[in-house]
Amino acid sequence: MPTDTLPRSEHDKLANAIRSLAMDAVEKAKSGHPGMPMGTADIATVLFSRFLKFDASTPDWPDRDRFVLSAGHGSMLVYALLYLTGAPEMTLDEIKNFRQLGSKTPGHPENFITKGIETTTGPLGQGIATAVGMALAEKMLAAEFGKKAVDHHTYVIASDGDLMEGISQEAIAMAGHWKLNKLIVLFDDNDISIDGPLSIADSVDQLKRFQAAGWRAERINGHDPEAIAAAIERAKKSSKPSLIACKTVIGYGAPKKAGTSKAHGEPLGADELKGAKEKLGIAPEPFAIAPDVLDAWRKIGARGAATRKTWESLFGTLPPKKQAEFRRRIAHERPAKLAKALAAHKKALLANPQHIATRKSSELAIEAIVPAMPEFLAGSADLTGSNNTKAKSAVAFSAKNPKGRYIHYGIREHGMAAAMNGIALHGGFAPNGATFLVFTDYCRPAMRLSALMGTGVVYVMTHDSIGLGEDGPTHQPVEHVASLRAMPNMRVFRPCDAIEVAECWELALNRIDGPTTLALTRQNLPQLRTDVKVNRSAAGAYELVKAEGKAQATLFASGSEVEIAVAAQKLLAAKGVAARVVSVPSLDLFLEQPADVRAAVIGSAPVKVAIEAGVRQGWDALIGHDGVFVGMTGFGASAPYKELYKHFGITAEAAAEAVLGRIG
Amino acid sequence: MPTDTLPRSEHDKLANAIRSLAMDAVEKAKSGHPGMPMGTADIATVLFSRFLKFDASTPDWPDRDRFVLSAGHGSMLVYALLYLTGAPEMTLDEIKNFRQLGSKTPGHPENFITKGIETTTGPLGQGIATAVGMALAEKMLAAEFGKKAVDHHTYVIASDGDLMEGISQEAIAMAGHWKLNKLIVLFDDNDISIDGPLSIADSVDQLKRFQAAGWRAERINGHDPEAIAAAIERAKKSSKPSLIACKTVIGYGAPKKAGTSKAHGEPLGADELKGAKEKLGIAPEPFAIAPDVLDAWRKIGARGAATRKTWESLFGTLPPKKQAEFRRRIAHERPAKLAKALAAHKKALLANPQHIATRKSSELAIEAIVPAMPEFLAGSADLTGSNNTKAKSAVAFSAKNPKGRYIHYGIREHGMAAAMNGIALHGGFAPNGATFLVFTDYCRPAMRLSALMGTGVVYVMTHDSIGLGEDGPTHQPVEHVASLRAMPNMRVFRPCDAIEVAECWELALNRIDGPTTLALTRQNLPQLRTDVKVNRSAAGAYELVKAEGKAQATLFASGSEVEIAVAAQKLLAAKGVAARVVSVPSLDLFLEQPADVRAAVIGSAPVKVAIEAGVRQGWDALIGHDGVFVGMTGFGASAPYKELYKHFGITAEAAAEAVLGRIG
Repeated sequence: MPTDTLPRSEHDKLANAIRSLAMDAVEKAKSGHPGMPMGTADIATVLFSRFLKFDASTPDWPDRDRFVLSAGHGSMLVYALLYLTGAPEMTLDEIKNFRQLGSKTPGHPENFITKGIETTTGPLGQGIATAVGMALAEKMLAAEFGKKAVDHHTYVIASDGDLMEGISQEAIAMAGHWKLNKLIVLFDDNDISIDGPLSIADSVDQLKRFQAAGWRAERINGHDPEAIAAAIERAKKSSKPSLIACKTVIGYGAPKKAGTSKAHGEPLGADELKGAKEKLGIAPEPFAIAPDVLDAWRKIGARGAATRKTWESLFGTLPPKKQAEFRRRIAHERPAKLAKALAAHKKALLANPQHIATRKSSELAIEAIVPAMPEFLAGSADLTGSNNTKAKSAVAFSAKNPKGRYIHYGIREHGMAAAMNGIALHGGFAPNGATFLVFTDYCRPAMRLSALMGTGVVYVMTHDSIGLGEDGPTHQPVEHVASLRAMPNMRVFRPCDAIEVAECWELALNRIDGPTTLALTRQNLPQLRTDVKVNRSAAGAYELVKAEGKAQATLFASGSEVEIAVAAQKLLAAKGVAARVVSVPSLDLFLEQPADVRAAVIGSAPVKVAIEAGVRQGWDALIGHDGVFVGMTGFGASAPYKELYKHFGITAEAAAEAVLGRIG
Repeated sequence: MPTDTLPRSEHDKLANAIRSLAMDAVEKAKSGHPGMPMGTADIATVLFSRFLKFDASTPDWPDRDRFVLSAGHGSMLVYALLYLTGAPEMTLDEIKNFRQLGSKTPGHPENFITKGIETTTGPLGQGIATAVGMALAEKMLAAEFGKKAVDHHTYVIASDGDLMEGISQEAIAMAGHWKLNKLIVLFDDNDISIDGPLSIADSVDQLKRFQAAGWRAERINGHDPEAIAAAIERAKKSSKPSLIACKTVIGYGAPKKAGTSKAHGEPLGADELKGAKEKLGIAPEPFAIAPDVLDAWRKIGARGAATRKTWESLFGTLPPKKQAEFRRRIAHERPAKLAKALAAHKKALLANPQHIATRKSSELAIEAIVPAMPEFLAGSADLTGSNNTKAKSAVAFSAKNPKGRYIHYGIREHGMAAAMNGIALHGGFAPNGATFLVFTDYCRPAMRLSALMGTGVVYVMTHDSIGLGEDGPTHQPVEHVASLRAMPNMRVFRPCDAIEVAECWELALNRIDGPTTLALTRQNLPQLRTDVKVNRSAAGAYELVKAEGKAQATLFASGSEVEIAVAAQKLLAAKGVAARVVSVPSLDLFLEQPADVRAAVIGSAPVKVAIEAGVRQGWDALIGHDGVFVGMTGFGASAPYKELYKHFGITAEAAAEAVLGRIG
C-alpha cells in the first residue's frame, strides 16, 4: 500500500472528522468514551490513510490487514472509521444510534453485530491477546499457502489498561517468542486511567518490558503524523513484533478536559464539546462532516480495491485445488474426510473396546482426526503429556518452523484461550487448546468471548474432577463444569467412554458458531457404549441402560460417574429394583432439546438420582429439587482417587442405597 | 538474624537432607514432583539457615518472615523444611504419608491443613501475587504500629511457570510501584518446563522484565551457597523489591534425569533414586536423616526463638492499648464499634429512605464502617468512581504514604484479588476490592483460593447485570452470579436496597473464615425494607411482602429484581391473585439453612416464580424445574437499561402474566 505523506492540514481534517463523530455520538447517547478516539484519531488516520490494507466494500477479504481496537471502550473510533471509509452497513444513522438497542454501534465493538469489526473487545487485554492469535494464524497460513494467498499485517491500538492486564504479558511473551513481526501494536500512551493520572497506580517502563519479551519498541509523539508513519515503516521492516508507544493527549482538543481522566468515560458536555470543536476548527453542527472530508475518507476506504483485485489475480494463479482448499479453510467448512475418519474410528472402538482415561480416548480421536483435517490445530499450556493433545505426527510450531501444527503455549492458559479466539477469527484453522479443567478459571474471560462471539474453539480440559487424585483441591475441579454450563453459548461435554469422546469431538469440530469444552478424565474408564450408528451425544443425554421391567428409578450421570451409575443399576437389579441409566454427556445441550424429547429421556420413574463428581447446581433441572444428588458439596482433597471417591461417598453403593432409601 | 557462613560440607548435608526426603516421599507416594525441591534445596537451605526470621515452635508469631513457595508443586520442599526444623505437627510419619488422605502433607501446600504454610499454592502465579499482598500488609502495618511490632521480610520461591502466568506481571508491577523492598523473590531459574526445555515456549528476559517493573534483579548460581547469601544480603539493602534469578538444575543429583523435564512431575524410580543418593552421598535407607544433620536443622528451627523473645519484649514496651489493638487486628477480631455503627446507619436509612443504586448504598455503608474499623482496607481496580468504594476520608496508599488506607490496584483485577488474599493471610487488615461483576472472570483463580483457604476477603462487584446498560454484553454479567454461587465456600450477596446492603456488609465483614461477593447495581433502586431490628439477610432469604390472603404464588427475587417482584405482586393483587414476595439476598446462604427454615420461607403456594436478571441455573432449588423463571437465557445487549429490561422481558408485567398463565 502507498504510504504517501499527506499535507498536515489535510491530515488534521481527516483526524478531526473522527474526533467530531466521537464527541457527537457520545454526547447524543449520553454515555460512552470520547477521550480515547479523540486521543488516537491521529494514529488511526495515519494507519488507515497510509498503511492499512483494506477495502471498505469487502470487509471479509481474506488477505486484509487486521485492525484490532483492544481498547474497546473507544468504540467510536472504529465506528467513525467504518462510516468515514464507507463500510456498507455503517450509516450516519447508525452513528447517531450509538449505544442504542439494535444498532450496529453498541457500547463496545462486537464483531457479531458489526461487519468490519475483527473481534469483540472491551474486557481489557483481550484485544491484544486475540491479535497475537491472528498474527500467528497469518504466519502459519502464509507458510502453508504462500504469500500469494496470505501476506498481511495485524495492527492493534492498545491502552494502558490493556497493558496492565496480566494477559497482555502472556500475549507479548508468545508474540516475541514466535517472532510475529507482522504484529504492530500502537500503544495509546496517554498517562491517564479512570482513577486519575496513571502514576497513582503504575510505573512500568513499557518499552523495556516489551523489549524483554523480544519486541522492537520505541516511543513517539502520537500527534505527529510523520512520526507515526515513520515508526510504522520501521516496524514493518523489523524481524520482531513492534510496540510503538504513541504519546497522546486523552480527549485531544477538549479545552478543559483534555489530558485528564474526565475525558475518559462520559460525554464532554455541551460547553466542552463546543469549545473542542472551535479549537479543532470543526463545524458546530452535530454529526456534520464536510463533503470534501467525507470524500477524502471514502477514497481511503476505496484505496484498497485495486490491491484486493491484484490479490484476486495472484490468488487465481494458484492451483485450483489449493484455491478451493484455502476457501474451504477460511469459510470454516469441515473436510468431507472428517466424518468418515471418525466413523471408522468409532467402529474400531466397537471392535476393540478400550478401558482407558477419556483424555487418552481423546488422544485416539485426535489421531483419527489429524490426517483428515489439516486445519486441526492442537496445543497445550505446558501439559502436553497430561492432556494427550499431541498426535504422533504433529510437529511443534516455532518461529523457525511455521508449518508446525502443534502449539506449545507455555504456562499461559489465558493467553492460549485468547490466541485461539484470534486464530479462529482469522480463519484457516480449527484451534483447540488444553490444560487441566480447574484452570479454566484462568481462561474464563477469553472463554466468555469465545461464547459471546461464537468462535468454534475447542477447550480440551483434562483432569476433570477429584478423579485426578493426589494433586489435591487446588487442582480438582468441583464447580467448574457447573460454572461453564452457566455460560451462554458454551457447550460443555463430559463424555463417559471412548465412543462418547469420539462423538463429542465430532460435535465440537462441527460447531463452528460457538465454543466447546471437553471435560476429560485422568483415570481409566470402561467402554460402556455398544453402538455407534447414531451420535447419541448429539442429544445431550440418552438412555444408556434400560430398566428390566418398569423403572422405579432413573440414574443420571456424566463422564466418569456413568460407570458408577451402571454399577448401581446392577446392585439395584440384584435387589429386585428396576432402574435405568441415562448418560448425560452434555447437560446444557440436553436442556436445549424440545420438551417432548426431554420428557422421554427423563422418564417417569419416581426416584431420580444424578451422579456427578461436582456440585449439584444445574442438576435439579433433571431430577427436581427433591431428587437425589450423589456428588460433591465442597472442595476435594489430596489422596489416590479411588480413596477420594469413597471418602466423598460417590460410589455405586451410595447411589443404590439412596434409591433404596427413597423406595423405602 | 545472623548470616554466618556455613562450611560447604555442612551446607551440603543440610541441603541433601531436603533432597533425600523429597525423593523418598515422592517415591513412596508414587506421585509428586521431586525435581523442584532437589533443584532449590541449596536456595532454601541458605534462606532458612542464615536469613529467615522464624521460630519453628511458633508458626503464628506475627513478626515472622513470610516464606511462600509459589511453585506449590514442589511441596515436599516446604514439608521437608517443616519437618527438619521441627515444626510441631510435622512428623516423619506425615512425610511418609505424603499425598495421602488426612495427612498434613497434601499434594500442594495448603495453609488450612498444615501449620507453617503461609498460603495455599499450586495454581501457578498465585503465590508470588499473594506474597505481594503480604508485603503490602507488612509495609502498611509497620507504618501504623511501628517497627517494634512489625519489621519482617517476605520471601518467595517462584518457578518459570509462576513468571509465565499473566498474574505475575500484575503482581510485580504493583510491588515495583509500591516499592515493596522487603519482598524478595528467589526464582528457580532452571530452564525446564513440563513440555521440555523452556526454550520451546519462552524467551523472555526475566531480569529486564522485572527491572522494567521497578525491581532490582540479578542472576546467580543457585547451587552456590555464598552467591545465594550474598545476593540476599544485597536484596535486603535495596530500596526496591528484588528478583534473584538462581540458575539451578532441576532434579539436582539425579544421575540421568537431572536437568530434564523427566525430573519434574513423577517419582525418580528406584534406580535413579539410588544413583542420586550415591551421587549426593546420602544413606540409601528411605527417610533416613543422619542424627547430626537433623540436629543441625533443629538448631536452625530453634534459632529464631531468641529473636522472637526480643520481639515480645520490644512489643511489650508499646502502650497497652496499642498492643491490644495490634493483637485484635492480627486475630481478625472485629471492633465492638462496628456493630453499633452499622446499627446506627440502618436506623438512619429507615428514617430517611434512599432511592439510589446499591453501589451507592454500599458507599453509604462504607462511610459508616470506616470510622469504626481502622483495618477496613478498600480498593478498586481502576474503577473507584464507579464502584463507589472510597470513603471521603480515605487516603490513597502509596510508596510515600504507607498510612494510606485506599488501594489503587490499577487495571489488575486478578492481581488485586490475589493481593487481598495475601493481605488477609498476613493479618492486620480486612481487605475489600472492587471492579465490575463481569470481571470476576479475571479474578476467579484467586477468588477460588479465597474460598478454599477461607480468607475473609470482600469482593465488591458493581454493575451486576444488564442494568449497567449501554456498555453492552462484554460488560453485562449474566452467568456470573450463578457461577460464583457454584463455588464452594464463596458467599454471594445480591442485596435489593440500602438496608439489605448494610446487612450484607455486616455479614461480609464478620465472615472471617471465607470470602464474600457483594453484587451491586449501577442503577437506582427504591428502599423496600421497613424494618432493621433483625439482620434478615443472614438467613439468605426471607418473606419481604406477605400475601393478602392465602398465597397462590410466591415471587422470589434478588437484588434489583426484588423491586420488580414487589410491583408484580401489586399487579396480581389488583387482579385478585394473592402472592407473596421473598427477597433472596443470598441463594447459597439460604440453601445452607435447616430444612424447616427453608420450607417455611419457600412456602406452599402452588406457583413459584424466580426473577433474576441472570441465568436460571441454581434457582430450581427454590422453584423446582417446573417453576417459572423470569431472567436471562443468553447474553445481554447495548442499550439504556430500562429498554433492556423490557427487551429481555424482565418486568413486573411479564412476571404477573406468567403467574396468571399458570393459575389459568
